[in-house]
Amino acid sequence: MVTSNTPDFSDVEAAAERLRGMGVRTPLHESHDLNARCGGRVLLKLENLQRTGSFKFRGAYNRLAQLTQGELAAGVVAYSSGNHAQAVAAAAAIVGTQATIVMPADAPRVKVERTKALGAEVVLYDRYHEVRETIGAEIARERGSVVVPPYDDPSVIAGQGTAGLEIVGQARSLSADLDAALICCGGGGLTAGCALALRATSPQTAVHTVEPGGFDDTRRSLLSGHRERNSEDAKSFCDALLAPSPGKLTFAINRGLVTSGLAVTDAEVAAAMRFGYETLRIVLEPGGAVALAAILAKRFDCSGKTVAVMCSGGNVDPDAFCRTIRPEQ
Amino acid sequence: MVTSNTPDFSDVEAAAERLRGMGVRTPLHESHDLNARCGGRVLLKLENLQRTGSFKFRGAYNRLAQLTQGELAAGVVAYSSGNHAQAVAAAAAIVGTQATIVMPADAPRVKVERTKALGAEVVLYDRYHEVRETIGAEIARERGSVVVPPYDDPSVIAGQGTAGLEIVGQARSLSADLDAALICCGGGGLTAGCALALRATSPQTAVHTVEPGGFDDTRRSLLSGHRERNSEDAKSFCDALLAPSPGKLTFAINRGLVTSGLAVTDAEVAAAMRFGYETLRIVLEPGGAVALAAILAKRFDCSGKTVAVMCSGGNVDPDAFCRTIRPEQ
Repeated sequence: MVTSNTPDFSDVEAAAERLRGMGVRTPLHESHDLNARCGGRVLLKLENLQRTGSFKFRGAYNRLAQLTQGELAAGVVAYSSGNHAQAVAAAAAIVGTQATIVMPADAPRVKVERTKALGAEVVLYDRYHEVRETIGAEIARERGSVVVPPYDDPSVIAGQGTAGLEIVGQARSLSADLDAALICCGGGGLTAGCALALRATSPQTAVHTVEPGGFDDTRRSLLSGHRERNSEDAKSFCDALLAPSPGKLTFAINRGLVTSGLAVTDAEVAAAMRFGYETLRIVLEPGGAVALAAILAKRFDCSGKTVAVMCSGGNVDPDAFCRTIRPEQ
Repeated sequence: MVTSNTPDFSDVEAAAERLRGMGVRTPLHESHDLNARCGGRVLLKLENLQRTGSFKFRGAYNRLAQLTQGELAAGVVAYSSGNHAQAVAAAAAIVGTQATIVMPADAPRVKVERTKALGAEVVLYDRYHEVRETIGAEIARERGSVVVPPYDDPSVIAGQGTAGLEIVGQARSLSADLDAALICCGGGGLTAGCALALRATSPQTAVHTVEPGGFDDTRRSLLSGHRERNSEDAKSFCDALLAPSPGKLTFAINRGLVTSGLAVTDAEVAAAMRFGYETLRIVLEPGGAVALAAILAKRFDCSGKTVAVMCSGGNVDPDAFCRTIRPEQ
């Protein structure tokens, strides 16, 4: 069901205008080694090089750039496992408002530290016993603040879509016709935004979500047609992709535009992070490496195809990164 | 003294033609965080994303693409601490010839392994008691092979210069006028090639070399006007930049085109590698991080300036990388 506040492609274009000079037009990188390994042409969208280290800056800035003077004075509230947190904190500093971020107590330390370093107030909660939306809503009500949701918001979705718009433009300049795009998926905001951009500018490109196994709610929802929930017992080290179910707004978009969902194991994600270190010489966090994992593990067959692969973030504790890239450990 | 085989800008342009589609047009990346820290505009040339993980592919391919059928049949020989090794091995596989690489026994393990994985024969030598040029020349004489020197060769210099040519074109598309370019320097091949490209296409840009302390032979040679040698006791973890003195051909170019040389400590390089991991989310090897180190450590003041900074490679053993990025260790 598409609701009246569903964003469309013109919102993505408007977001791209707002973001000009504020965010990074991240590279669409092609690796000969990766092409050879996959037997196709793979174009990596390096959102780990985005401001604050993930695509999340796009949506957060696009939302905060539209706040009124009154809203700016009252501050903003967000809940996030860490990447949206840093993005909202950075965008708040730019537009001149105070950010309060509700984060899980077990979020990667670098994500908490960087969010604080960007000037935000951080409120920690217990991910297994408290509901972040409730805590966020309460703070917002007390202070009269605007809540900036991590994905289920039209401006956030439109902002994330600018990554998809860039992919199409950059692929054209490489004379590449995209057969498919693989998008890392948590709540579905990045997927929804990119799907809007791809449908409008490259309609022949099939969009696939990639999720961690056990958190493949979007994959299952696309099959059933309803918003499925993940088991409360599910575990994954992809801390950025642990949303319990697809967003209402994001799923309304994705069910019409996404071809199918894929899932990968944590071991496949770890192998993709190692490939990122050894062969691409980039830093990817677990959640940022799921789409790369899908092609390396042949969950998606790239042979003979031209495929855009989202590398969505690179915020990872050094200890966790080093445990992952050293095969002997 | 410019000799008859000194390359000029037309050789750089010809190299760019040869490399089209074979190498990566690496990103010229701008980080808001880095700009804020330096008080200027810093454009990072990410040669760690180059094929084989360093700029060396450019020169090696440009040289090997010009071999005759007879030379291809006899194979090539190179000596290298590791990045030129991988580059020659990869280029040899592409053009269809056999590569033999003389490498120091204490080269980073990943560099030796990757060189072998690319199909080259590796001959190890003792860096403190044997002379690699002699070993290489002996093998070449026995087999009738062409020697591909790591820097003192006109085609190699012209190939490396394509990185400089790209910098100027990419900076223009970002509406950036470069005040300076900081180039990581070992034997001076990358510097010489980039200096030729910059002089021809962006003559107002000052070129500076950056070397590890103790291996600042080019810095001292630029001051004295003669090719100075490093002490045999000098030590640095920048394994890619341990050339004993400037090349004859490279110094003939650099003495006329380079404004001055800078030197950085290993501790400053380690801090730059950490900055690469934490803030840029990229993997830099020690030798690839010296130019970034120079601006972070204020050896070069970027305030109010627009500066291109070469990030020349990202081939580093995971153990060494992890020791460096974890401040607690």
